[in-house]
Amino acid sequence: MTPTSECIRVLGIDPGSQVTGYGLVLASGEKLQGVAYGAWRLPARRPLPSRLLALYNAIGEAIAAFRPDEVAIEDFYVGQVRAAVTIGQVRAMALLAAAQAGLPVSLYRPLEVKRAVAAYGLGDKAQVAAMVRMLLDLPQEPAPADAADALAVAICHCLHLRARLALGLSGESER
Amino acid sequence: MTPTSECIRVLGIDPGSQVTGYGLVLASGEKLQGVAYGAWRLPARRPLPSRLLALYNAIGEAIAAFRPDEVAIEDFYVGQVRAAVTIGQVRAMALLAAAQAGLPVSLYRPLEVKRAVAAYGLGDKAQVAAMVRMLLDLPQEPAPADAADALAVAICHCLHLRARLALGLSGESER
Repeated sequence: MTPTSECIRVLGIDPGSQVTGYGLVLASGEKLQGVAYGAWRLPARRPLPSRLLALYNAIGEAIAAFRPDEVAIEDFYVGQVRAAVTIGQVRAMALLAAAQAGLPVSLYRPLEVKRAVAAYGLGDKAQVAAMVRMLLDLPQEPAPADAADALAVAICHCLHLRARLALGLSGESER
Repeated sequence: MTPTSECIRVLGIDPGSQVTGYGLVLASGEKLQGVAYGAWRLPARRPLPSRLLALYNAIGEAIAAFRPDEVAIEDFYVGQVRAAVTIGQVRAMALLAAAQAGLPVSLYRPLEVKRAVAAYGLGDKAQVAAMVRMLLDLPQEPAPADAADALAVAICHCLHLRARLALGLSGESER
């Protein structure tokens, strides 16, 4: 986000081992708008390479369709090594698709995302969907939960951009 | 490998958090030939997305140049979650590039690779390079070690294909 831009489009992505959520948020001044959201489910029966390819293609199509200015990805903590490998692979699809599109990418840890959204109200992780609904003034809570998480990441990034702008820092968001 | 094919080209890949090795092995009957090998080092100072993109491009170029029939990737055990995420991301580049090229992909655990190579002689992991050199009749040990590991994965896959062929099983290698 450059200081002159009035509106910025942030694509939030929440990588998961089975379901990966996405959500597009438009930030314009103080206003946040949730434009689109959803989730991709990896077809469980197909071999890993073609599952990753399908996800990679889906993310690329979303970038082409939504034309985000920036991408924000939920960093994560997983306790088990095997899950970490799987989610690392899924996250790599988002990182690669963003890099190929030449978009700045930011990673936010779950706690950062929670804090950003909770600053407006509730703090319970289970209520992220309710907070996202309120913040984006959506008619209903976004579903599935992965989509709500992805919107929360996008919101988190918008707030970080705004704070950086307020501090007169560079718009560079690559971390 | 179909029962009628006389020669098969296997690209072995050993994903690492900093260095990823590759090696091309041609299997023809009982003969194994090491055609090319090397390693890609991720430029440490660049941000993660562009590092992954660079690796993805390098693997894609290797597939285009070497025209392998199959890809074999070393599966791995890492004790730490953070390392697992990183190597998961690196491995995803290999999986994706192979899937995009429509190539069958096989994953082998380090112990499987070691056993396959050790069947011909030594068993010490530190001596993989020496075993690979002997098996492929190379003038010198392949370096760096990551390249030797990648050649070992390719050799492991060639031996599995041969065993499958001898048992009259399908040539399908997707695991």
